[in-house]
Amino acid sequence: MTPLIALLTDFGTNDIYVGVMKAVIQQICPAARCIDLTHAISPQNVRQGAFALFNAYPFFSPGTVFLIVIDPGVGSTRRPIAVQAGEYLFVAPDNGILTYVLSELAPEKVVVLENMDYQLPDRSRTFHGRDIFAPAAAHLAAGVPLERFGAAAGDLFTLPAPTLTVAKGQIEGEVMHIDRFGNIITSIGKLAWIHDDSLMLRPRFGSFSGLVHITADRAAVTIADQELHTIQPSYSETARGEFVALVDSSGYLEIAVNQGNAAARLDVQVGDPVILQK
Amino acid sequence: MTPLIALLTDFGTNDIYVGVMKAVIQQICPAARCIDLTHAISPQNVRQGAFALFNAYPFFSPGTVFLIVIDPGVGSTRRPIAVQAGEYLFVAPDNGILTYVLSELAPEKVVVLENMDYQLPDRSRTFHGRDIFAPAAAHLAAGVPLERFGAAAGDLFTLPAPTLTVAKGQIEGEVMHIDRFGNIITSIGKLAWIHDDSLMLRPRFGSFSGLVHITADRAAVTIADQELHTIQPSYSETARGEFVALVDSSGYLEIAVNQGNAAARLDVQVGDPVILQK
Amino acid sequence: MTPLIALLTDFGTNDIYVGVMKAVIQQICPAARCIDLTHAISPQNVRQGAFALFNAYPFFSPGTVFLIVIDPGVGSTRRPIAVQAGEYLFVAPDNGILTYVLSELAPEKVVVLENMDYQLPDRSRTFHGRDIFAPAAAHLAAGVPLERFGAAAGDLFTLPAPTLTVAKGQIEGEVMHIDRFGNIITSIGKLAWIHDDSLMLRPRFGSFSGLVHITADRAAVTIADQELHTIQPSYSETARGEFVALVDSSGYLEIAVNQGNAAARLDVQVGDPVILQK
Repeated sequence: MTPLIALLTDFGTNDIYVGVMKAVIQQICPAARCIDLTHAISPQNVRQGAFALFNAYPFFSPGTVFLIVIDPGVGSTRRPIAVQAGEYLFVAPDNGILTYVLSELAPEKVVVLENMDYQLPDRSRTFHGRDIFAPAAAHLAAGVPLERFGAAAGDLFTLPAPTLTVAKGQIEGEVMHIDRFGNIITSIGKLAWIHDDSLMLRPRFGSFSGLVHITADRAAVTIADQELHTIQPSYSETARGEFVALVDSSGYLEIAVNQGNAAARLDVQVGDPVILQK
Repeated sequence: MTPLIALLTDFGTNDIYVGVMKAVIQQICPAARCIDLTHAISPQNVRQGAFALFNAYPFFSPGTVFLIVIDPGVGSTRRPIAVQAGEYLFVAPDNGILTYVLSELAPEKVVVLENMDYQLPDRSRTFHGRDIFAPAAAHLAAGVPLERFGAAAGDLFTLPAPTLTVAKGQIEGEVMHIDRFGNIITSIGKLAWIHDDSLMLRPRFGSFSGLVHITADRAAVTIADQELHTIQPSYSETARGEFVALVDSSGYLEIAVNQGNAAARLDVQVGDPVILQK
Repeated sequence: MTPLIALLTDFGTNDIYVGVMKAVIQQICPAARCIDLTHAISPQNVRQGAFALFNAYPFFSPGTVFLIVIDPGVGSTRRPIAVQAGEYLFVAPDNGILTYVLSELAPEKVVVLENMDYQLPDRSRTFHGRDIFAPAAAHLAAGVPLERFGAAAGDLFTLPAPTLTVAKGQIEGEVMHIDRFGNIITSIGKLAWIHDDSLMLRPRFGSFSGLVHITADRAAVTIADQELHTIQPSYSETARGEFVALVDSSGYLEIAVNQGNAAARLDVQVGDPVILQK
């Protein structure tokens, strides 16, 4: 089976950093294939990276090695780690970026990347993506057992959970991501349609672990100074240029404008509050 | 032979959408290789995507599957289709994006993608790229016959042709694309040099189907408030910073500035008129 | 062994140019794999491309073919060339883009790409990346000997060296690159830590060929109106938001802001002077 490495970084693609990491991978594990998840995580935005990874990983085949380098603490005492969880392997700095994934997939083995045999010989203090993480991902893809990379890591650094509170009749969340289209993705999920006119919320975050029933055409969504009535099945349920609340492709409450840019029109930022009244 | 899938979308590369589509492809057809044509088509700009595809497809090897997701109508009644034409396969929404290609390559088979066996089980209403189009492209790349995906599609949605009119002595076209360098690509093509000083136009669009002879140094190009005399063989025929009219690499009349940005200097937009006097 | 082609261009990824070059490569050498170094070199900025290549090439496996298309002189008399140097092959326009690499790797064979058998049949005058360079890279990757592409090229065009002067106690360099994070990479290198508190400079550019010893905490860096004392081992040695001078991952003096954007705060441009007092 061809080994697969999925890359997620904040390096952008304007510099040579990503290409150099792939060159390092290719030298160590020539058979490996790379899929770029994205390299456009905002610089050092660990939480945005954690959310992107959380929503992407289930689509990858078992055995995929995730190579994640959003690493504001490079050169400090933050530890480089590798984690086996579910059928996947994750290579990343221990800065919380795996928090959301590991809330779904219990980690089976976690090691610190400290064995110099699996690092570039001339290690820098500013580009561990090239010198530690890419080599580790490539060696894992080539079949080196996790235990060889270093000692068990013990407790990992974790991020606080996104806001998602459920009180009588009202669900409060926050803006998690704004995509290329200006669609606003919130922390309110996982939502699933159960009938043509009703949805079920099974909270992914926060302390409420029950199920919440929502009637689509009685629901009201408040974001910025906009109030939207009804959760629609798709963008095209509204006229072009109109706001629409819907369930995004990962099961989150999304606020969009049909063929327009909702985030620009509402001047919304990541972290802003969103309220869903059911 | 390694199956090849060429991707063309308006998803950008800042989100995880393209990476997730590739993960889906890899699970269904691990042997497939992907080439990114571009993911930077302006959001929902079907015409820009159609023109990009039209100019790129002839360079791909026979058997290539084109996976095209510029899909403003996702979740509406617009149909997802697959088309066999020439030696290629195209997977796309039925929104006109194949119009220009299918004016050159007669479609042999066209089906609606309705067989749920070739879709992701948990289909969303907002990301058919992941749930319908990528799986279809991957199954086609893996050799599943087109007929299995659904019933014959009948008539397809088509875009109006770009402006290209030929009247005595004068050819009128429009701006089709502005590239990274600020080069202005027009609908006036296909132009080919037949001697050092003369060109032949065989219109790709519009109703005039004859050949038009053009003498390079008698030609005049009018765009915005600029008039350019002579069609030159290459950028370097003019001084750095000077305007130049030439034939672009796909055979279209192009207006450029040698080592500069013509579109910025002329403040030209896609759709603006261009006149060539021969 | 799978042939490897590394791509470096100024084409961006918003147009179809890079995808079309990869399609051409795939038709000629289906086994070849491509790694994108970057396509975001500033339009026609040969020097920026030369510096990117210089810092990236050592990480690629022996046998890699570098396909470099930053080509302001396309269609002029500038020659397309292929070079064998060290264990690598380089395909590029003869415009100086290989200057820095060939200061480290003596060229063994240099030929002009003139054999039409290894070009696309319908060669344009504006896109030699597609018509000459990509086919050459693909044929080289497929094993065609360099000699077959054309006659020996003789002297190559060269760029002037970056500023790097060493006078008593003072090293003067210039800003070479500003990366996605706003980190400022200078020509002052190659720097290496030899003890916890001292570095050795072995100049890569300029006429001074000796070694310069630098005491980290006596060093002072002047850039724009900022003076930084001490060269630090990593970003995290300073507080978040503070300026820091350090050694970048390729061995150059770098000026950064811990988790911030140094170039924006200093309003620095490529080419601006930097002074290091040891």
